[in-house]
Amino acid sequence: RYGEAESEDMVGVVTGLAWTEVGGEILTIESVTVPGKGKVQTTGKLGDVMQESVSAAMSYVRSRATSFGLKPTLFDRRDIHVHVPEGATPKDGPSAGIAMATSIVSVLTGIPVRKDVAMTGEITLRGRVLPIGGLKEKLLAALRAGITHVFIPKDNEKDLADIPDNVKKGLTIKAVSHVDEVISTALVRKPEAISWEEPAEPPPRGSETDGSVPALPH
Amino acid sequence: RYGEAESEDMVGVVTGLAWTEVGGEILTIESVTVPGKGKVQTTGKLGDVMQESVSAAMSYVRSRATSFGLKPTLFDRRDIHVHVPEGATPKDGPSAGIAMATSIVSVLTGIPVRKDVAMTGEITLRGRVLPIGGLKEKLLAALRAGITHVFIPKDNEKDLADIPDNVKKGLTIKAVSHVDEVISTALVRKPEAISWEEPAEPPPRGSETDGSVPALPH
Amino acid sequence: RYGEAESEDMVGVVTGLAWTEVGGEILTIESVTVPGKGKVQTTGKLGDVMQESVSAAMSYVRSRATSFGLKPTLFDRRDIHVHVPEGATPKDGPSAGIAMATSIVSVLTGIPVRKDVAMTGEITLRGRVLPIGGLKEKLLAALRAGITHVFIPKDNEKDLADIPDNVKKGLTIKAVSHVDEVISTALVRKPEAISWEEPAEPPPRGSETDGSVPALPH
Amino acid sequence: RYGEAESEDMVGVVTGLAWTEVGGEILTIESVTVPGKGKVQTTGKLGDVMQESVSAAMSYVRSRATSFGLKPTLFDRRDIHVHVPEGATPKDGPSAGIAMATSIVSVLTGIPVRKDVAMTGEITLRGRVLPIGGLKEKLLAALRAGITHVFIPKDNEKDLADIPDNVKKGLTIKAVSHVDEVISTALVRKPEAISWEEPAEPPPRGSETDGSVPALPH
Amino acid sequence: RYGEAESEDMVGVVTGLAWTEVGGEILTIESVTVPGKGKVQTTGKLGDVMQESVSAAMSYVRSRATSFGLKPTLFDRRDIHVHVPEGATPKDGPSAGIAMATSIVSVLTGIPVRKDVAMTGEITLRGRVLPIGGLKEKLLAALRAGITHVFIPKDNEKDLADIPDNVKKGLTIKAVSHVDEVISTALVRKPEAISWEEPAEPPPRGSETDGSVPALPH
Amino acid sequence: RYGEAESEDMVGVVTGLAWTEVGGEILTIESVTVPGKGKVQTTGKLGDVMQESVSAAMSYVRSRATSFGLKPTLFDRRDIHVHVPEGATPKDGPSAGIAMATSIVSVLTGIPVRKDVAMTGEITLRGRVLPIGGLKEKLLAALRAGITHVFIPKDNEKDLADIPDNVKKGLTIKAVSHVDEVISTALVRKPEAISWEEPAEPPPRGSETDGSVPALPH
Ligand SMILES: [Ca+2]
Ligand SMILES: [Ca+2]
Ligand SMILES: [Ca+2]
Ligand SMILES: [Ca+2]
Ligand SMILES: [Ca+2]
Ligand SMILES: [Ca+2]
Ligand SMILES: [Ca+2]
Ligand SMILES: [Ca+2]
Ligand SMILES: [Ca+2]
Ligand SMILES: [Ca+2]
Ligand SMILES: [Ca+2]
Ligand SMILES: [Ca+2]
Repeated sequence: RYGEAESEDMVGVVTGLAWTEVGGEILTIESVTVPGKGKVQTTGKLGDVMQESVSAAMSYVRSRATSFGLKPTLFDRRDIHVHVPEGATPKDGPSAGIAMATSIVSVLTGIPVRKDVAMTGEITLRGRVLPIGGLKEKLLAALRAGITHVFIPKDNEKDLADIPDNVKKGLTIKAVSHVDEVISTALVRKPEAISWEEPAEPPPRGSETDGSVPALPH
Repeated sequence: RYGEAESEDMVGVVTGLAWTEVGGEILTIESVTVPGKGKVQTTGKLGDVMQESVSAAMSYVRSRATSFGLKPTLFDRRDIHVHVPEGATPKDGPSAGIAMATSIVSVLTGIPVRKDVAMTGEITLRGRVLPIGGLKEKLLAALRAGITHVFIPKDNEKDLADIPDNVKKGLTIKAVSHVDEVISTALVRKPEAISWEEPAEPPPRGSETDGSVPALPH
Repeated sequence: RYGEAESEDMVGVVTGLAWTEVGGEILTIESVTVPGKGKVQTTGKLGDVMQESVSAAMSYVRSRATSFGLKPTLFDRRDIHVHVPEGATPKDGPSAGIAMATSIVSVLTGIPVRKDVAMTGEITLRGRVLPIGGLKEKLLAALRAGITHVFIPKDNEKDLADIPDNVKKGLTIKAVSHVDEVISTALVRKPEAISWEEPAEPPPRGSETDGSVPALPH
Repeated sequence: RYGEAESEDMVGVVTGLAWTEVGGEILTIESVTVPGKGKVQTTGKLGDVMQESVSAAMSYVRSRATSFGLKPTLFDRRDIHVHVPEGATPKDGPSAGIAMATSIVSVLTGIPVRKDVAMTGEITLRGRVLPIGGLKEKLLAALRAGITHVFIPKDNEKDLADIPDNVKKGLTIKAVSHVDEVISTALVRKPEAISWEEPAEPPPRGSETDGSVPALPH
Repeated sequence: RYGEAESEDMVGVVTGLAWTEVGGEILTIESVTVPGKGKVQTTGKLGDVMQESVSAAMSYVRSRATSFGLKPTLFDRRDIHVHVPEGATPKDGPSAGIAMATSIVSVLTGIPVRKDVAMTGEITLRGRVLPIGGLKEKLLAALRAGITHVFIPKDNEKDLADIPDNVKKGLTIKAVSHVDEVISTALVRKPEAISWEEPAEPPPRGSETDGSVPALPH
Repeated sequence: RYGEAESEDMVGVVTGLAWTEVGGEILTIESVTVPGKGKVQTTGKLGDVMQESVSAAMSYVRSRATSFGLKPTLFDRRDIHVHVPEGATPKDGPSAGIAMATSIVSVLTGIPVRKDVAMTGEITLRGRVLPIGGLKEKLLAALRAGITHVFIPKDNEKDLADIPDNVKKGLTIKAVSHVDEVISTALVRKPEAISWEEPAEPPPRGSETDGSVPALPH
């Protein structure tokens, strides 16, 4: 059923955790890739902050592409579409950032995401994981949905003191300060880095002519 | 007459089901394809959520193109225009998602849609079918319009208990959890998958020069 | 005088019929074509619904180009500008749809529109003609303006019972269910279909290399 | 001084006539051309209706380019910037349409506009001149500014009965129904038509391959 | 200190004069050029009218490029960024137009602007200088800031009667009707015109085929 | 912990200083570079003024590229993404301008930023540093966060009289009037200028034909 943990490991499908006035719930993040030019499309009634967190996640992945085994030229040929069902429910906030990054790496590498894992944490362009709100409600929602492993921000570790014991017993909770710790564990296998040499700069326009002129003043 | 089931099987024309305060009614979804670059245009006074559900349907179809017999390169040469008459009536909501996907597959494969079929269900990027509201009103509208077969989301199956017996007798109702179940039945014949090898990556710019430089730091 | 039937058959100029609180009046739709890429520009203070009806008319014409004798490649080289004078008067609604389609076909084929013809009807992407409001006021306006032939939607035929006899006597009224019935009669000669073979798909990028790689997972 | 008739015939500079609650005044329309792609840029705090009238004027000129001695390919290499000083004063309305067209033809042909001429009239895509409001105030303003010749719409000819005799004596007023009557007289010499053959359509993409495939169904 | 006359002649840096309810003050206009396509970017919290006056200034300079010694093709390779510090202060109005033009010519020619010069005046596409408001406050601000030479519009010359004698004694005030009078004096040396022949029009597409087809009707 | 000085020197990560009604705090600015065309993307809920200050910083760096050892052609191949966490907190104002410039130079040169440095100051297109507000609160925040060196605008030097002695003792404060003073010190090593000759202008289009035509009049 929708709103519960996935029944199988899937490529590009990640379980996030949302927190509203009426409690926490799980949030499915889905990505697919289609031919394109490195753009990201987002749907699912996402607010500005959540859309910006998708952009940040994408730039993180692009700028570190080779560490995930992705050729930088891949982004010349591929777009990503990130969707967060249910389409009529407004969503916002930065806390799905690490889930966005995980979904993007999964869909571009083709490595599935473990179905029993959920995660919450803001992402920065350097992959750092920043603290979030509503930890208790989110962990309760994860437990209810059948999740067994949850990644939380290192800076939220102190809030674990307030979490009921049965929740902490029912969940394996890992506090992380960098998204790479999440990606390497949440995917069914760790992406392997590749080495990559940027092609030499093409000769400048007009270089076949023999003369050159001084640069413009500025 | 407009507002009733189609009188013949047509390419790209799918019957959806809408639900408003004054009851249900059928909703015709029409698609055509014109030369282009893989864009989707939508008209018919569609709200943001319905427009996003067209995007999700399109990305689903694109990302699974070969399973519908569509070469991925088709989207380099074709745009889709999805229109929902009547043009002056505002429409919104995600529940036409599976109808959008069916219409797009029909118009791109050229396989007509069965005229006596209607459908309702939100679509996700993975093709899952999510539950919708107003099932009773929608089924009544389908019956009234002369529809004989209706696809509904698996998660709405429990709501069938509230549906009057004459409605359930007059309609063949199929509960589905994935849009492929809809597409393979609602089209007059099931699209056949093709195999496809992505062309080798073109050699990088500048590769004809003999030197190469290390990648930029980041 | 402006606001009356045209004094000669003109290319791209079609008489529509509008209906406001103070009665009906005729509406001139004008199109011209300029070099471009298949885009449509609209002016004349058109509301969203009327702009969408121009888009629907254009996609209908494009998707059925050969049936009007138009090479599909024409749209790689031509834009259409549709204007509805008087420029300071706001206009909206879908009922000029069939007039838009007729104007576009006229300007692209170069076949003039009969000057004594007016028309009203929403268009769908398949060329169907949907019912409109204000039939009586529109017919009165047509008569007043010196029009002799009017196309109305089949689904409005029942409303003719309310129309005064002198109006029905003064006008030849034709009820239509498809826009092609309009176009073939309203133009001074019926456009002749051409046959067209889509060029073979160009070989994929990179096909000169001998290897190929499997498609990306998704 | 600004706000009076020009002191010499200038290329691209046309005197229009505006009408506000506090009376009429002259309106200078200026155009320049810069390298580009056939776009029109407008400045001078123009409202939507006035901006649309610039678009209509431009499309009229483009679609009739050869009749003004302009090669259609000129628009592949040139943009037009139309500005209406004074930049802080909001302006709107369609009545500067024929002045816009005259300015555009002047700047593209390089033929100056007579300095003692003013004009008012809405333009359509076919070059028709539609009636305007405030004729009396506009004529008074023209006289005050030192203008000697004014073009007005044919459909405003009946309003001349209300114009004071001294105004009619001080101005040569010409009523026109088509913008070409304006352009041929307001420029210091009439543009001469050229003949032009559209180049043959380039062979379709992929035509070097020997096979061809049937068109997509739609 | 910022808010005073520059301490040296700089390329692209021009002193304008602003007028607000609390008096006049100087306004620094800065331009730089970066590789691009002839676009103008504006920053500094500029209102619509001031942004349009930058566009007008740019089009003036582009359309008269050779008279400033600039090859027209320069704009195929260069963008301009015009910024007006302080970035948090909203600015609007057309009166910085001649300063914008001067800044653009300076940055494109590489000729510095005299540091002791300020200017105020609206610009038109033909380079005319239109009158402005707040002359007294602006001149006082110039004097206070250490400016010695000010350009004002010819049409404001009559307002000099109201200016205190000490201001007129402290400033060399030049009334101008065309921006070229400003540019030739405010730059440390007058830009020298070049001659330029526009390259012949490239042969039309498809001209290698031997046939040609008549133009489209319109 | 987030909100404190960095624990290591990082590329593209700069510590700014913000000032709100409830006091000062540090602001992390992060940049990454991805393949592109010289565009800047900004995220982090930045207001218009802060976004414009990123544009100004970028244009400053682009227009002075060689002085930082950056080939101008680099911007044909690279975009910059500037993000300011925390993503849900609105930020605005021009005072992060010099931090933006420092971050951009760091990410493009690959030279890390010293972790114990913070900075505040508006930037202009010429690299000048303009004064800011809230100096006291910002310095207190820097001290609290473990920063040891702070760059402030020269024009704020006079405000140091109001700063408590313990703050001035705990921080090395450097007042600067140009951003280059910041960049050369805040990076772990000073970027070295390169020399660069702009390639000769490509021969004009159509120059292979033997004739040429006079330029268009304007
Ligand atoms: Ca829910
Ligand atoms: Ca959240
Ligand atoms: Ca209805
Ligand atoms: Ca719905
Ligand atoms: Ca009217
Ligand atoms: Ca209507
Ligand atoms: Ca005035
Ligand atoms: Ca007007
Ligand atoms: Ca100030
Ligand atoms: Ca001003
Ligand atoms: Ca904080
Ligand atoms: Ca700030």
